[in-house]
Amino acid sequence: MSIKVIKVNEEILGANENQAELNKRRLDEKKVFTVNVLASPGAGKTSTIIRAINALKKKFHIGVIEGDVSSSIDAARIQTVGMPVVQINTAGGCHLDANMMVPALDNLPLDDIDLLFIENVGNLICPNAFKLGEDTRILIASTPEGDDKPYKYPAMFTDTDIILLNKMDLQPYLDFNFDAFQKVVLEINPDAVIYPYSCKTGEGIDAWLEWLEAAVSAKKNS
Amino acid sequence: MSIKVIKVNEEILGANENQAELNKRRLDEKKVFTVNVLASPGAGKTSTIIRAINALKKKFHIGVIEGDVSSSIDAARIQTVGMPVVQINTAGGCHLDANMMVPALDNLPLDDIDLLFIENVGNLICPNAFKLGEDTRILIASTPEGDDKPYKYPAMFTDTDIILLNKMDLQPYLDFNFDAFQKVVLEINPDAVIYPYSCKTGEGIDAWLEWLEAAVSAKKNS
Repeated sequence: MSIKVIKVNEEILGANENQAELNKRRLDEKKVFTVNVLASPGAGKTSTIIRAINALKKKFHIGVIEGDVSSSIDAARIQTVGMPVVQINTAGGCHLDANMMVPALDNLPLDDIDLLFIENVGNLICPNAFKLGEDTRILIASTPEGDDKPYKYPAMFTDTDIILLNKMDLQPYLDFNFDAFQKVVLEINPDAVIYPYSCKTGEGIDAWLEWLEAAVSAKKNS
Repeated sequence: MSIKVIKVNEEILGANENQAELNKRRLDEKKVFTVNVLASPGAGKTSTIIRAINALKKKFHIGVIEGDVSSSIDAARIQTVGMPVVQINTAGGCHLDANMMVPALDNLPLDDIDLLFIENVGNLICPNAFKLGEDTRILIASTPEGDDKPYKYPAMFTDTDIILLNKMDLQPYLDFNFDAFQKVVLEINPDAVIYPYSCKTGEGIDAWLEWLEAAVSAKKNS
């Protein structure tokens, strides 16, 4: 199965908010629970999505949209776990937008999908301003990035209530202070829920997966 | 000593390339060797700059421009090592540009500076397109980000010849493959020089510092 690669060009760029709302309606009609996954480069977006797929694939049909500046290596990783995947290459662009979703959704079997992950471009700034039509955003932070990131990239932490904190297995070798991280996150976003975990070992990921399973089931059965 | 904070607004945004050339001439006249430091969030930009300052401050006068979306905490860290520092807050902007440099340079004692670090906004995409007037760029990658980052953010690795690879002390706990990283970097940029090191322990940083010292001396004595 070859990977569908959609090249983004100016023709499909346009008013974002309206298109995001149209995407949302389309996904709501199909009862597809959609998660926009945001993070720095290398925080563990693809690995976390693969963990979630392996944990939930017996319960739900899952699809993935991969957003990258260049390459299809993340889409190829998703393919190895047998899920339908579409790659969007932004050709240098620093975020996905709602218009890029249209051809991606056209190329996914939405009737057969309960849970759709959209892996955004690795970037803690630009993707925040662009809704895609998702039900929820999750932000993946990671311990090697340091506990000061919420201070420095506040918009991303303010506009996302579900914060996954990956690479907890590395904490013994780092100066990362979990209490300091949590304190500043809750200062700028009192509604945030932080899930510390290690994608490598799997430790701690179940709490978030339980939340995700409940959310997907609720939409599927709505 | 309070930290000078420059708020970027539309009035000082404009044609970038011409202004970068003007900045370069201004810095050349003062014989200031200028380094534009690029990286993902949390790769170790500020820590590496502080390491370099502590190693070279007896030989050179050093200044720093800090670029952040928000906050002055990096500038405050630089202040603790006693160097002149200017903070640029981009108010959501994802990169520094040449026009932002003008008020920053106005607020630094350029006559007394041999080496100027410009710490760009943490972002592996957008800062690449904007020259600031620097003599050289360095890109700081870090092992927890993974060895596949050159594939996924190729422009940044193509347009920067000096690549510092930080957090080598974490390699025993990661799947990071140095040979794979080096191979892809050299495929997309045969002129690249990679300096693996640990900012935390200091191991390996001397090779890059020797290069830097020679470059600063050459410009100072030109």
